[in-house]
Amino acid sequence: MSLSKNEIKVIQSLQRKKGRIQHRMFFAEGIKVVQELIASSFELSSLYVTKECQDCFDSEQHTLITEGALKKISALKTPSGVLAVFRIADVQELQLDGLVLALDNINDPGNLGTIIRLCDWFGVQQLLCSKDTVDCYNSKVVQATMGSLSRVQINYVNLKEVLEASPSPILVADLDGENLYQTSLPEKAVLVLGNESNGISAELKGLKDRLLTIPRFGSDTESLNVATAAAVILSEFRRNQ
Amino acid sequence: MSLSKNEIKVIQSLQRKKGRIQHRMFFAEGIKVVQELIASSFELSSLYVTKECQDCFDSEQHTLITEGALKKISALKTPSGVLAVFRIADVQELQLDGLVLALDNINDPGNLGTIIRLCDWFGVQQLLCSKDTVDCYNSKVVQATMGSLSRVQINYVNLKEVLEASPSPILVADLDGENLYQTSLPEKAVLVLGNESNGISAELKGLKDRLLTIPRFGSDTESLNVATAAAVILSEFRRNQ
Repeated sequence: MSLSKNEIKVIQSLQRKKGRIQHRMFFAEGIKVVQELIASSFELSSLYVTKECQDCFDSEQHTLITEGALKKISALKTPSGVLAVFRIADVQELQLDGLVLALDNINDPGNLGTIIRLCDWFGVQQLLCSKDTVDCYNSKVVQATMGSLSRVQINYVNLKEVLEASPSPILVADLDGENLYQTSLPEKAVLVLGNESNGISAELKGLKDRLLTIPRFGSDTESLNVATAAAVILSEFRRNQ
Repeated sequence: MSLSKNEIKVIQSLQRKKGRIQHRMFFAEGIKVVQELIASSFELSSLYVTKECQDCFDSEQHTLITEGALKKISALKTPSGVLAVFRIADVQELQLDGLVLALDNINDPGNLGTIIRLCDWFGVQQLLCSKDTVDCYNSKVVQATMGSLSRVQINYVNLKEVLEASPSPILVADLDGENLYQTSLPEKAVLVLGNESNGISAELKGLKDRLLTIPRFGSDTESLNVATAAAVILSEFRRNQ
């Protein structure tokens, strides 16, 4: 079957945030992540597969297309053989409870995807993102989440306002704070991680209750990748419970 | 200044492992990582910059080229304005001491780069890679290391032989082992992390002394990204010291 011009146009528009907001849809590519998202709570809108991949999916769900057609709608240089379009779920109301992670201007899609996966692993159900953090339905983010996207509630918010109103203490990951291994961590907290290059933004600096630092054992290295820093700190919160 | 045909050919060949082995050189792109590598122990072979980036580098070191010329040698879709070629340092003799990390068939360049950066942070000086692990001088790995590449000794080895001869215990990260938070960790050990999809290879399975598991707090997620798993386990080793 071939794709209509309109289908192509709509799917191509989903590569951009504007198109995703307009159509309330996003797409994923790659057998594994698509299978995981189909099995998740996301509602499948359409599923396009090439001949080689058709056996990996329920034949009643998918539309068989040519490699040439897939290339037109894929965001990849080398399409993987499957592209699925899902509806974006409605945003649930914000409820700051337990351990909450907040991201301030995270730019890299791979970092955000990895952090969503970490939240899923460590049972952090609520992820707050500043409005300038990369969109979680960006196809590279979706790819890196490996299906965790459906299990973590993600809210894009005015971080300053939300943090100001937070009943839980605000803990910020920083290079110059308390030694993470030697401090006691509260059960309820909002843990804030800042931008890959610049750390947290000036307007949030006054809001912190505590700064946390992962001790460094090497010599000259400047900083950890933000997703690995998230891994270490979330692990430390959970080991104490 | 323009680039000679031969210069272009050599630099393009460095995008592949074969070319890097033949010329004993690798390249890096991006102002920050190039600056860090120039400041490191790597020997700079040549430095190409476009007009916009020339002020970021010592004028005696760099060759000014056009954007068109940079595009010819760059591995990036959108070149960053600087490309530096470095000599690959001689491999030092293997000395398994203290905490050593071993990677079994890690495929993703971003994962390897992030793990090298983690080794640097946590003071792990020796990184063993199986021969089928992605090459650490791959330009995407170099990019992700953010300069840590010069501070971690990386040996590509027959992992089975080296582990068989190891005086320290072999600890393997696994989904079905001892709870990482409730076990005691030795000061000297080789920590083995397996492939992103398949875990450790069959031939290594018999060599392990212990299996370590990062407890899961979420529900359905299948596994952690290998670099974030490395972060959590290395942190756990170091917090105990």
